[in-house]
Order: sequence, then structure tokens, then C-alpha cells
Amino acid sequence: MSIDLNPEFVDHIAVAVKNLEEAIKKFERIGLKPYHTEEVADQKVKVAMIKVGPTNIELLEPTSEDSPIAKFIEKKGEGLHHVALRVNGLEEILNSMKEAGIRLIDEKPRLGAEGKKIAFIHPKETGILLELSEVEE
Amino acid sequence: MSIDLNPEFVDHIAVAVKNLEEAIKKFERIGLKPYHTEEVADQKVKVAMIKVGPTNIELLEPTSEDSPIAKFIEKKGEGLHHVALRVNGLEEILNSMKEAGIRLIDEKPRLGAEGKKIAFIHPKETGILLELSEVEE
Repeated sequence: MSIDLNPEFVDHIAVAVKNLEEAIKKFERIGLKPYHTEEVADQKVKVAMIKVGPTNIELLEPTSEDSPIAKFIEKKGEGLHHVALRVNGLEEILNSMKEAGIRLIDEKPRLGAEGKKIAFIHPKETGILLELSEVEE
Repeated sequence: MSIDLNPEFVDHIAVAVKNLEEAIKKFERIGLKPYHTEEVADQKVKVAMIKVGPTNIELLEPTSEDSPIAKFIEKKGEGLHHVALRVNGLEEILNSMKEAGIRLIDEKPRLGAEGKKIAFIHPKETGILLELSEVEE
């Protein structure tokens, strides 16, 4: 059985940073200026989004010590954290992944930033943390 | 002075892997199948490319112990290694970065995979390893 993932584009690349203001200054220095900043209380992060074609580079600063981003920084330091792929039919994809025995962090879509439906695949599957995201029409 | 980087899209996201064949199997299992595999002798890697819209996810296996990818895996383990942004006017961008005191790994464009011109910005600048790439018309 093969999964019909068929991603449209890379939705975002997430970067874990200790201090969002300092990180923004560094990215601006090389010509990458965020167009939007917000706090996502649910995920315990402040985020700054830099647009690169259809993809965002998202800088994530943890707002709490028990945020997954805080734990990542503690263990691995600042840097590339995860990659999100834009898909269609997220719920069906998750169901077929579950049937195929693929380990999921989220077996059902949940609400992410900007009203997107999102789900994470367990990093043991590919060696990287992959998110799937869907925007409903 | 601000840098006129203006990237068009994310050219590729590079993932360091120990064993390319095993990594390909894992990515295929979740529905991400490489369209192309090659050995880039110059960079001492074997690479498999997965297309996601305008972006490639590139799986990189080191072919030598002194490859930067081998050193990365030794230090940090397998995982996300760098992000490349597609730009126009790479040489001019590098010149203005140099003038602005931005630390570059490559002060002049060099030849990358698929005949692209590439240059790396020093990871101390942003906290992640960023590559700039250009395809000449």
C-alpha cells in the first residue's frame, strides 16, 4: 500500500531561536525581513514569518520552558526544527498512514497558526520532524 | 545598507542521512519518492532528490569521512542540515554582503549540483546554514 501524499509545496521551514527580536535582526541583516509576527499561545511560541515564494521561514521562540521548542533548544541548540508540507485531504492521508502503521504524533488534524489544519508525523519515520498542513477552501 | 536578497523560492532543504538507501525507503513509505539520485564527487555526497512544488528535499549521504555531512552527523546526528534559497544576481549579492561585513563561506559563487551557481552564508550570521543558489538563463 502506498500513501498518496502528493504535497503541493513546502508550507514552512521552522527555526528554533532563543530570542525572536535578536533572530529577526540577524535575518534582516542578510535581507530576509519578516512580514508578520504573532504569539501562538497553544504552541507556546512567538513566531516571525519570512516569505520565500510559497514557503515561509518561521522563526520560533518558546514562551514557556515546557514548550517543545524550548526542549529542542536545550538538547540540540538553536537551528532548523521542522518542515511542513502543504497537502490536500489531510484527514484521509492520516487515516491511510495509520492503516499502514506509520507513527503519527497527531492521528487527527488539529488547529495550527493562521487557521490551518495540521498534523505531525513522528520523527522516527524519516529522521526529521515533518508536519502536514492543509488550508480548507 | 540593506541587502537586496529577494529570494524567489526555497531551492532545496538538505537532510543529512547515514545511509541513502535506507533513508529513501523511509521517505517512500510516507509517500515521498525521489525522482533523481546522483553522486556529487566535489561535495563528497550521494544525493536523492524529492520534488515538493518548486523545492527539492535532498537526502545527503556522505561518501567520505571528511565530508562536511559526515562531520555534521558525527556531531549532531542525522537530520535537517541546510536550506538553499534561489536568487538572481548571486555575484552582486555576495559583493554587497561582503561590503556589509556579512560572514560568507563562499565569497564567490562556485559550481553546485545540476550546474547551479551556489554560495554558503556562514551559519553564525543567522543560526542556520543558508545556501544561495542561482540558475543562469
